[in-house]
Amino acid sequence: MARWEPGARERLVIAAVDLFTEQGYDATKVAEIAERAGVTRSTFFRHFADKREVLVAGQEALSGLLAEGIAAAPDGASPVEAVSAGLERASNAMGPVNRELAPRIQAAVAASAELQERDALKSVGLAAAMTTALLDRGVPDPAAHLAAELGLLAFKSGFARWSAANRDDPTELAQHAQVALEELRAAAAALG
Amino acid sequence: MARWEPGARERLVIAAVDLFTEQGYDATKVAEIAERAGVTRSTFFRHFADKREVLVAGQEALSGLLAEGIAAAPDGASPVEAVSAGLERASNAMGPVNRELAPRIQAAVAASAELQERDALKSVGLAAAMTTALLDRGVPDPAAHLAAELGLLAFKSGFARWSAANRDDPTELAQHAQVALEELRAAAAALG
Repeated sequence: MARWEPGARERLVIAAVDLFTEQGYDATKVAEIAERAGVTRSTFFRHFADKREVLVAGQEALSGLLAEGIAAAPDGASPVEAVSAGLERASNAMGPVNRELAPRIQAAVAASAELQERDALKSVGLAAAMTTALLDRGVPDPAAHLAAELGLLAFKSGFARWSAANRDDPTELAQHAQVALEELRAAAAALG
Repeated sequence: MARWEPGARERLVIAAVDLFTEQGYDATKVAEIAERAGVTRSTFFRHFADKREVLVAGQEALSGLLAEGIAAAPDGASPVEAVSAGLERASNAMGPVNRELAPRIQAAVAASAELQERDALKSVGLAAAMTTALLDRGVPDPAAHLAAELGLLAFKSGFARWSAANRDDPTELAQHAQVALEELRAAAAALG
């Protein structure tokens, strides 16, 4: 009996990342991903528009969590404190599967120009979601854009540290992201 | 006699932007772009891999100018001062054609998911070029990443103001970019 039984969507992501790792992104067909995940092709297409979208699965959910956390920050919070609240909320939604898959997803993206484009658009989308949430709080531009970029860099950097850390290191993603954000905040104040 | 006779590459960019504006990006074929520009299809393909690349023409040149300007900044320059030197060098390479085409390129990008991805990758590439140039100067991370993002935001914002300004406004792109950079620097220092 499997230790855990992820839903079809998660199984599709895992199957896709496994296949991209084994045989490359270009050589992998949707039908193979579906077969490996034990679902039909039409189930695949209920979850993803194409194989590329599998690797940015969760972008909308992630954008939503970042924005919600920013919106829910206390009234007097500075832009960076609001971003911190967004990172906290988004980080808490990431689990062991995200952590395990991250290095292989990164390798697949690094090996494919097509995936790099999609990944770049994902970054732009996350930053835009945070920018909008900050503007909605009354943070003026360009502080809103800038704080959102800080948040994006902190999330990426925190995620990279989290997925690279030993599995017996109990530091959670949220902590890694906060440390990265604090480093960025200090760097921002010292840019000259 | 034409007032100026741009080379094939520039004619292809202008023809492509005209056609994308008139009939949309998806409906435009490479053969039409070549015909409008008065060149053969094979000349098109000597300059661009596909029609999408036309709209990010100059990305490599731009990355190179930003990096060169950063590298050539005086020894004691702060990260933001180095970025400022990069923006100065890149801005001075932009001319009236860039300014005229900008709003239509922006409209074409806004109307096409495919172009948005390519445009996002262009932004990532420009930031990466500046980050590398700053690291090469000995700027530590995350200050290097952050200063590069400031530079990217300043260049985009300066470019948008420049192309939106009245044509009798003598403010040059370099000035718009410096003003935007100064706003971002002040915002960075006040992020909280």
